[in-house]
Amino acid sequence: MPTLFERIVAGELPADIVYRDDEITAFRDIRPQAPVHILIIPNKPIPTVNDITDADAPLVGRLFLVARDLAKQLGIAADGYRLIVNCNSHGGQEVYHLHLHLVGGAPLGPMTVKR
Amino acid sequence: MPTLFERIVAGELPADIVYRDDEITAFRDIRPQAPVHILIIPNKPIPTVNDITDADAPLVGRLFLVARDLAKQLGIAADGYRLIVNCNSHGGQEVYHLHLHLVGGAPLGPMTVKR
Repeated sequence: MPTLFERIVAGELPADIVYRDDEITAFRDIRPQAPVHILIIPNKPIPTVNDITDADAPLVGRLFLVARDLAKQLGIAADGYRLIVNCNSHGGQEVYHLHLHLVGGAPLGPMTVKR
Repeated sequence: MPTLFERIVAGELPADIVYRDDEITAFRDIRPQAPVHILIIPNKPIPTVNDITDADAPLVGRLFLVARDLAKQLGIAADGYRLIVNCNSHGGQEVYHLHLHLVGGAPLGPMTVKR
């Protein structure tokens, strides 16, 4: 079963796509947790951080370059933002296709709830 | 002025280092926000995500490989964890040397406070 994100990459599901190239697609989260909330994903399916191979390092690094460029384009680079990748249940991962959250547009508060 | 993290890389400040190679150093956060809280940094100073160059992509990707491997070694890979990079004031960045937070060891709750 392809994930929702795989279907977005394939053009089978609609999404508000803000960036796309041969390796990477970025689109707005449909349930934004901040004024700006974009998901940046590799086009190829990698389920979780645990599944990244050594050969994927340049691709994963490029997710950050896309985040850097989108933050600038969206006018949040100077004030700042947060990049997040959730892995498995403790991380709260919801879709098992690696995705980098770019959140910003307001002060984001503590990065995790202190326990 | 070198940052605290540059001084840790240089061996001028003590840290509980859990991984080190020619490009990357990882050490425990002195104010952990979760049972496991490790900072993974490039040895060379890159102040923020905004300052990552295109040529840095493989290095930034390797921060994720180190996170993946540490999560496995520390026994939190299967339950899961969260990787976070804060940028500038809205992100709550405290040290201006790029760092990837690896947090886990318990369910982490929502990834940001809904506003």
